[in-house]
Amino acid sequence: MNRKTLIANIKEKKSFLCVGLDTDLEKVPPKFLEADDPIFEFNKMVIDLTKDHAVAYKPNTAFYEAYGASGWNSLEKTIDYIGNDHFIIADAKRGDIGNTSGRYARAFFHTLQADSVTVAPYMGIDSVSPFLAFENKWVILLALTSNSGSQDFQLLKDEDGLLFEQVIKKSQEWGSIDNLMYVVGATHPEQLKHIRSLIPDHFLLVPGVGAQGGTIQEVADAAFTKDCGLLVNSTRGIIYAGGNGEGYQERIKNAAAELHNQMKTYFT
Amino acid sequence: MNRKTLIANIKEKKSFLCVGLDTDLEKVPPKFLEADDPIFEFNKMVIDLTKDHAVAYKPNTAFYEAYGASGWNSLEKTIDYIGNDHFIIADAKRGDIGNTSGRYARAFFHTLQADSVTVAPYMGIDSVSPFLAFENKWVILLALTSNSGSQDFQLLKDEDGLLFEQVIKKSQEWGSIDNLMYVVGATHPEQLKHIRSLIPDHFLLVPGVGAQGGTIQEVADAAFTKDCGLLVNSTRGIIYAGGNGEGYQERIKNAAAELHNQMKTYFT
Repeated sequence: MNRKTLIANIKEKKSFLCVGLDTDLEKVPPKFLEADDPIFEFNKMVIDLTKDHAVAYKPNTAFYEAYGASGWNSLEKTIDYIGNDHFIIADAKRGDIGNTSGRYARAFFHTLQADSVTVAPYMGIDSVSPFLAFENKWVILLALTSNSGSQDFQLLKDEDGLLFEQVIKKSQEWGSIDNLMYVVGATHPEQLKHIRSLIPDHFLLVPGVGAQGGTIQEVADAAFTKDCGLLVNSTRGIIYAGGNGEGYQERIKNAAAELHNQMKTYFT
Repeated sequence: MNRKTLIANIKEKKSFLCVGLDTDLEKVPPKFLEADDPIFEFNKMVIDLTKDHAVAYKPNTAFYEAYGASGWNSLEKTIDYIGNDHFIIADAKRGDIGNTSGRYARAFFHTLQADSVTVAPYMGIDSVSPFLAFENKWVILLALTSNSGSQDFQLLKDEDGLLFEQVIKKSQEWGSIDNLMYVVGATHPEQLKHIRSLIPDHFLLVPGVGAQGGTIQEVADAAFTKDCGLLVNSTRGIIYAGGNGEGYQERIKNAAAELHNQMKTYFT
């Protein structure tokens, strides 16, 4: 999906909601465990319930790899089922030497048909560039992540600035607003505003709303632009909002609708 | 595999050779393409030809993911076939928020039964710790990688030193010589010696010998210890040494034997 279509989808729906599909069979309602492919069946339900509220889906590969080849099969089916009307993020946090990153790009862009993949910047240019060579596909580069460990290295400072600032600056030479986004955690609202000033036109993927403590309002106030420029992700706050008891479908839908309603107020 | 067994295997074989299994179907002899599972059949041949020379195998997950669920199936079969007599490195360069890294640990240590997994440090402590919670399993943390992009961020310097030095220092608080190794590229022999002085007892996984330009002698002269302390990886220089013509099996075996012979001279 290209930038123009992504922005059009966002404006039409008045939503910048991304739903994380980190499906854990220890947390889904027990009836799904009876299915041939419980992960896919649960995802299918979540997608059906949230598709009018979300513009993007973000399966995290760890939750599929935990089940080996069968988990990868569920991931393939999930991405097929999402289809072309939503932006698909393979949250994989990959990155390797050039030759090898090229194979990952093939895995996520050709074999899986995702629109984008999250990439870790530690290994530098040749670990990122192979992903940028695919037309209408995106790299979402880790800048300032939402977790507590983000303090360990991402805030190291040399004469040219903090490490995450240098990741943002240096990577501007590798990609453009048409194929490069950044991950910035909602748990750092003050830094979100600063990062928006560094990159006024790039999309930001913002995890950390809900279970991790950030809010839509903090994120949008800090970084919403005329093109929106945001994809805000919620995972546990939506897909496990239902619990196991009767009416879980309604609670999942309501959780997505509630975030959508908050988002609508930013579109005039 | 624990440290004691790893060292015993190394000393018995007089080898610290790790063979990379980055199997690319565009590069294997055409007869393998006729097999039901070409990747596994090629790996099986490489393992049979090199097992007396190598102490470790390192499949890189990118080469399997490029083929989707079927590639993961080949990876599972390959790891089963290697068995318990060799140290198995899942070269995956993973790392995510704690909850998610825990799922990756399950994928590589339970579902795949690898001994170790390579981990990217960018996301800090909670992205690494979940892997360290498994007994007799190892994290191999990226420190100074072999690729050209290693210059982009790994050499950034603040008052506490270069980024890769800080990754090494900080991670000492998270793991020990019994569950934590580091990736240091053979393309940086001067830094290898320096890193060995920082961590005299940790194992180092050293890629970059052969196709990438490093040599066994440079690496061993810089960082060989009384416990060896090294796993030196060669991939393309071994698994594609055979080419497609007659006698390729002998050429693969000879390529591994040649590195093994160089390594033997370091054991008295």
